[in-house]
Amino acid sequence: MAETLPDAEIIAVGSELLTPARLDTNSLYLTEKLNALGVEVVRKTIVGDDRERLAATVRECSRAARLVILTGGLGPTEDDVTRDAVALATGRESRVNEDVLGWLVNRFERMGRKMAEINKRQSYILDGAEVLPNPNGTAPGQWIDHDGTILMLLPGPSRELKPMFEQECLPRLERILPKQIIRTLFYRVAGMGESDLDALIAPVYTRYTNPVTTILAAAGDIQIHLRARCETASEAESLLAEVAPQIETLLGERIYSKDGSALEAVAGNLLRERQQTIAVAENCTGGMLGERISSVPGSSNYFVGGFVTYTERMKTELLGVAADLLEAHTAVSEEVARAMAEGARQRTGATYALSVTGIAGPDGSSEATPAGTVFLALAGPDGTTARKFRFPGDRERVRGFAVQTALDMLRRAMLRAPAPDSWRAC
Amino acid sequence: MAETLPDAEIIAVGSELLTPARLDTNSLYLTEKLNALGVEVVRKTIVGDDRERLAATVRECSRAARLVILTGGLGPTEDDVTRDAVALATGRESRVNEDVLGWLVNRFERMGRKMAEINKRQSYILDGAEVLPNPNGTAPGQWIDHDGTILMLLPGPSRELKPMFEQECLPRLERILPKQIIRTLFYRVAGMGESDLDALIAPVYTRYTNPVTTILAAAGDIQIHLRARCETASEAESLLAEVAPQIETLLGERIYSKDGSALEAVAGNLLRERQQTIAVAENCTGGMLGERISSVPGSSNYFVGGFVTYTERMKTELLGVAADLLEAHTAVSEEVARAMAEGARQRTGATYALSVTGIAGPDGSSEATPAGTVFLALAGPDGTTARKFRFPGDRERVRGFAVQTALDMLRRAMLRAPAPDSWRAC
Repeated sequence: MAETLPDAEIIAVGSELLTPARLDTNSLYLTEKLNALGVEVVRKTIVGDDRERLAATVRECSRAARLVILTGGLGPTEDDVTRDAVALATGRESRVNEDVLGWLVNRFERMGRKMAEINKRQSYILDGAEVLPNPNGTAPGQWIDHDGTILMLLPGPSRELKPMFEQECLPRLERILPKQIIRTLFYRVAGMGESDLDALIAPVYTRYTNPVTTILAAAGDIQIHLRARCETASEAESLLAEVAPQIETLLGERIYSKDGSALEAVAGNLLRERQQTIAVAENCTGGMLGERISSVPGSSNYFVGGFVTYTERMKTELLGVAADLLEAHTAVSEEVARAMAEGARQRTGATYALSVTGIAGPDGSSEATPAGTVFLALAGPDGTTARKFRFPGDRERVRGFAVQTALDMLRRAMLRAPAPDSWRAC
Repeated sequence: MAETLPDAEIIAVGSELLTPARLDTNSLYLTEKLNALGVEVVRKTIVGDDRERLAATVRECSRAARLVILTGGLGPTEDDVTRDAVALATGRESRVNEDVLGWLVNRFERMGRKMAEINKRQSYILDGAEVLPNPNGTAPGQWIDHDGTILMLLPGPSRELKPMFEQECLPRLERILPKQIIRTLFYRVAGMGESDLDALIAPVYTRYTNPVTTILAAAGDIQIHLRARCETASEAESLLAEVAPQIETLLGERIYSKDGSALEAVAGNLLRERQQTIAVAENCTGGMLGERISSVPGSSNYFVGGFVTYTERMKTELLGVAADLLEAHTAVSEEVARAMAEGARQRTGATYALSVTGIAGPDGSSEATPAGTVFLALAGPDGTTARKFRFPGDRERVRGFAVQTALDMLRRAMLRAPAPDSWRAC
């Protein structure tokens, strides 16, 4: 490998990625990982299931860069052309690898199924390639050093791609890439919008070109990356040590995670540490809050369960919300949010109960409670607090904001952190 | 122009599109417009602000397709390399166009500003190019017929790109493209894996190159696209009329949607038509089933709500599952799945109740019930049916399969369709 850092090309394979509805998002993940190694992505190509065109693309990319990563097209069907196209582009033969075939047959057996004949295609490996095991699917990856260009053939589904890249490709890349020290810091922030956050911290981060600061935003969730790139670790660390405290001071308790953990995992850990439990009562989110809490492995230690009360009758019967309360205030009100949280806490015996009631839209909207209006309440050992929100966006986005904010209410209550300015008290 | 329809290549230019946070979304818009003209996008490339690499990309794409659309890189700075790169790739000179320069100076004057010297770059036009006026910005587009390949140089910001494409490119394309009719059919399928489905229908679809068949798969959900391309509508329709019935016969009731609707919307519509309702009782999916059902706007017409019973106590107290049943069979059993569905149905008064109990993993796995074991039950007016499944993959994937399969159980029950072979009776 040359002394300078190699460039990388990413090729995403699949006709579905050339439709008006789909984008290749794997390349974002790969770019982040490659950048962290000091490798620059210089071109990304998306090619359909066309063997000749893909082979031409592989040839062009191999000429231009030292690392070529292909994702997708490793499945068992006729449409899966990556193996054949790379064989064509490199002049290498692709043939059955008996070890891979045995592993495949075995994998199907363990699932109690017989391997279909076409799956045999997935055991074809190019001459000279290293097999990259795939614990999460049937398509093994391949790593080929072709005249000094490294070609990586990786599966398309991200749940297969990511573990394979991390376990198989990263260690190999670290061995062949020149030593360069990258140190990163990573914050996840709740309780403020992207533009407010940018206005708050831009005066700090714009003063530095190293570390590089990147801000990524999703509904109610913002990620901040600081990346320092130096020749020595101490240099990189001292750069971060200069910038990080300034950003942390500005953001305070809005930072909920410094290790990449999701909000549901952070709140869950707080519950676990305190040996406390949580229940939920949901209206417009329909189970999404419980789904998020229970997406964390081991959440059965603190999540007792919950209620999805879509109708007024369910609120009354399952949660004991008084019928006259519903009539006086309607289901989307502070009073009902409180009663739902208290009812869920009382009926489950959990330490805390979170409730969500709102109008996710597009139906159910009125002048008094337009779509996006959501009340959240948290009942706990210190009583019940409720807050009113008006979230932007469509049904899915409103539901996403509601769940993220509910989890942040729980986190802040356990930390006894104050509510951010953007939350309205009821 | 040749008689056959030309393919298109899209090249997005800009180093910012190669960062971990940005995707090229202009291509989705362009793909939709091109597809509507019968033009297929065969490759998309994203290149940074690098003149030589972009020139190489333009050369490769011009060789491969009759239409090459470039977006971005037409600004006034050193980083804006599209004009120079296309000049390099085509061997055409790029020089100041006095009309464009006059228009630019004028545009700045109207804004009350003096044109900066660097903006003069934006008046460079390639020899033989038609200028595409830009009423929404300072970068004019260019349309070049280079040895039979059409190159379009369009601005990057979508509010400039879209009007220019519609006003300038579409009319030109309609003039040069042969009249062509596209007809598509679209199936969504549940209850079988991708390889089994492919093995079943490949004998049909591989016999035809028109329509083209594409298969896309996600956990428990497969999409099939058939696209016929002909000179007349009746020709395209008769091609589809030949292939579609063969595929529909093979797949039968496994096809749940022919209009792209998701399974939760299809099941929801069946409930709405019959004026019936549904409740849920979830264990390992933690609310995900309710979340899916309630993601459909208007689902409050048939979704009454549900229970997330993560602990044994919740199953007993909220759903009335007998404690000795739990002790005798454990929570992940056919008996408890049945009792959960029946309890949920009885306590909510819903027409149907679906229950999910299983081990999503990675915790909670045992030899008798390994991770991925899930029992689903449906209680309804005709009694209760339960089924045992072993789903592959990690926690999220197992949960996804469980929810998709539960929704399909509900759909099949309402249609009185038999269970697929892959489902095991308890």
